[in-house]
Amino acid sequence: MIRVLVWNENRHEQTSEHIARVYPEGIHGAIASYLRQSPDLQVSTATQDEPEHGLTEARLAETDVLVYWCHIAQADFSDEIVARVHQRILSGMGAVFLHSACVGKLFGKLMGTTGQIKWREAGEKSRVWVVAPGHRIVEGLPEYFEIEHEEMYGEPFDIPAPDELVFISWFPGGEVCRSGCCYTRGQGKIFYFQPGHETYPVYYHEQVLRVIANAAH
Amino acid sequence: MIRVLVWNENRHEQTSEHIARVYPEGIHGAIASYLRQSPDLQVSTATQDEPEHGLTEARLAETDVLVYWCHIAQADFSDEIVARVHQRILSGMGAVFLHSACVGKLFGKLMGTTGQIKWREAGEKSRVWVVAPGHRIVEGLPEYFEIEHEEMYGEPFDIPAPDELVFISWFPGGEVCRSGCCYTRGQGKIFYFQPGHETYPVYYHEQVLRVIANAAH
Amino acid sequence: MIRVLVWNENRHEQTSEHIARVYPEGIHGAIASYLRQSPDLQVSTATQDEPEHGLTEARLAETDVLVYWCHIAQADFSDEIVARVHQRILSGMGAVFLHSACVGKLFGKLMGTTGQIKWREAGEKSRVWVVAPGHRIVEGLPEYFEIEHEEMYGEPFDIPAPDELVFISWFPGGEVCRSGCCYTRGQGKIFYFQPGHETYPVYYHEQVLRVIANAAH
Amino acid sequence: MIRVLVWNENRHEQTSEHIARVYPEGIHGAIASYLRQSPDLQVSTATQDEPEHGLTEARLAETDVLVYWCHIAQADFSDEIVARVHQRILSGMGAVFLHSACVGKLFGKLMGTTGQIKWREAGEKSRVWVVAPGHRIVEGLPEYFEIEHEEMYGEPFDIPAPDELVFISWFPGGEVCRSGCCYTRGQGKIFYFQPGHETYPVYYHEQVLRVIANAAH
Repeated sequence: MIRVLVWNENRHEQTSEHIARVYPEGIHGAIASYLRQSPDLQVSTATQDEPEHGLTEARLAETDVLVYWCHIAQADFSDEIVARVHQRILSGMGAVFLHSACVGKLFGKLMGTTGQIKWREAGEKSRVWVVAPGHRIVEGLPEYFEIEHEEMYGEPFDIPAPDELVFISWFPGGEVCRSGCCYTRGQGKIFYFQPGHETYPVYYHEQVLRVIANAAH
Repeated sequence: MIRVLVWNENRHEQTSEHIARVYPEGIHGAIASYLRQSPDLQVSTATQDEPEHGLTEARLAETDVLVYWCHIAQADFSDEIVARVHQRILSGMGAVFLHSACVGKLFGKLMGTTGQIKWREAGEKSRVWVVAPGHRIVEGLPEYFEIEHEEMYGEPFDIPAPDELVFISWFPGGEVCRSGCCYTRGQGKIFYFQPGHETYPVYYHEQVLRVIANAAH
Repeated sequence: MIRVLVWNENRHEQTSEHIARVYPEGIHGAIASYLRQSPDLQVSTATQDEPEHGLTEARLAETDVLVYWCHIAQADFSDEIVARVHQRILSGMGAVFLHSACVGKLFGKLMGTTGQIKWREAGEKSRVWVVAPGHRIVEGLPEYFEIEHEEMYGEPFDIPAPDELVFISWFPGGEVCRSGCCYTRGQGKIFYFQPGHETYPVYYHEQVLRVIANAAH
Repeated sequence: MIRVLVWNENRHEQTSEHIARVYPEGIHGAIASYLRQSPDLQVSTATQDEPEHGLTEARLAETDVLVYWCHIAQADFSDEIVARVHQRILSGMGAVFLHSACVGKLFGKLMGTTGQIKWREAGEKSRVWVVAPGHRIVEGLPEYFEIEHEEMYGEPFDIPAPDELVFISWFPGGEVCRSGCCYTRGQGKIFYFQPGHETYPVYYHEQVLRVIANAAH
């Protein structure tokens, strides 16, 4: 049994009616709901406004994989808790960083880079190409899948060269980005996955969810 | 002084009037002509129809970097000479493989994969993105450059994960490819670079040539 | 259920009384016997002197992981069958190459390098260090393990830089080698593992066998 | 002309008579003195007790390569200056981290790991093996070199998998370590090099110095 904690900043859902309609249970709720279909995953959720951001020592100790979404509220996120989660990842907890988590404090502390990336909100189509066809994370996927409405994220993307590059995404405006990237830090396995804007229903997309479930496994 | 040998199959130039007009001195001639502008490069050329394909032991011994273009005539290319050039690369000769050379025998022998890739000849625009911004090979380049008319090459691309991924190309039909890939085999440094169809004047493109010159250095 | 085929050249066992005493069931027999303890592995064996070296199309089609040991009889090994197994690996069969298999034809075809390595037969101790502590292949291992009598294999080792370096071995004479190396070629996952000389009972060593079992998984 | 800044904590030299005798000009002085023999390197030095640790914005702006040695005084090293140098590296300054700099703040911020490593001070011999024979950093070196008296540094070494692994060191007590490791962060090239204890005259060793000079180039 793999214990997965889906963590979400959960601020957009409180402040935007539109986003609340897209994700009535929050982004964390949408993801957790899908993951709960896997009988070997034991799934719980936490959000930033819980005490200690829902990331207590005890909670982390009983987590095997952390799925992490953040965006606008990093200034309020405790550096001490960043250090705690960082330490837990080095000790072997897996971590899946979604979308704008690439510019968050925790991902930056693990990578040593800014995580900055070009972006444009225009509800564009994105096509996500598999470039590591035998990888566990792409199990059950075709050679590419499409997301109808997505925020564009494009190179240059300020990350270390991935230990394994799994996906490259295409956008109609002429951009590409390394959208699925594996790293190891200490004993912790880390996966960054680009899809997932808050204003589009990306976390109901079967193949996006499949990737997150594969990564958890 | 770096001794560069620009090697070209040079068959299309003999059989197609159109291609002969695009490359009156051959693809090798176009590339060599640009490289000769670098005072620290000593440039010569060879083609498949020369004795021993122009790749004698003596010739290889005095070559530091081989630039290699091939396409339709691999069936006529001697396996013995493949083995000889392969051995010379392991001993430290650099090699720049261009375009369809990814499916040639020599590249396959170095990589252990088929090099197969999706393709479509439609004179499409290609946009070549830098994803390794500090790399020697991208010196002097902007964050991307465009090629007005290019053959589409797209993932899945059957190559080993590059030691360093330098470029990713975007095509308007929805494809991407890992278009600049560095490898080391033995003491030899290898660079694969995707641009360069024979029917388009890609090897007169300032930035494409700049990349080849950078790679030679 | 993972279908594992343990393949062995099986020549030393026929020609050396000493080796026949060390491995009365052959090296393949010793390894298969251990792997059969895993309920989720379905294990069979094959040897070079079977028809088509025991590596028919049908046999390969029903194999998920090939464990491969070879040494002195590569000159007799069919190039056609090398090509067949190579193709099967690109299509997704896993492969574990043991010890002197690094200089065999199949490994060379996958790697593009000679696989040559320094060696000395002196029954020396070897200490195998884990350098990728979170990796699936090191599950259940301490930070290092020792093999009492082993052939020394030392750098320089002519292989491509591994996609993942898992073990580094130490030898008392002052040598080191990259002794556990992961690669991907096509959809096939490849693991090279250095321990395993034919004259020492290395394939009865609990931790060596554990690594092979982990790699199969 | 490459502008190299050799930075040293320079505390041991003030507090230990023995170390002051080994390095009368400081570790920075010993290294700078060697590098100055290269006509294309413009070499200066700085130490921790200078204002702003000798690492002002202006100083960094005119530095192409930083050589960095630290050990016991990191608690006194300003986090603000760590952030400044980190930013300068992302913008393209090269950095060579020596010996115990692997546990320093700056290296940790770049790597995302602790940099912790096993160690033992016993004046043991170390043998440094080249495992990337065509690499610029090993130019002019034999397949290995020895350091007569060195502090043992051994695996497990808590670093990200190097983008390029250049050296592996052997120690007589049974340890090995990844002793030459290349990384890229942003546009900055980073090289970690293990040799160099403060109580042994390692920075007068011709080949150690040669590696540092190669790395600077």
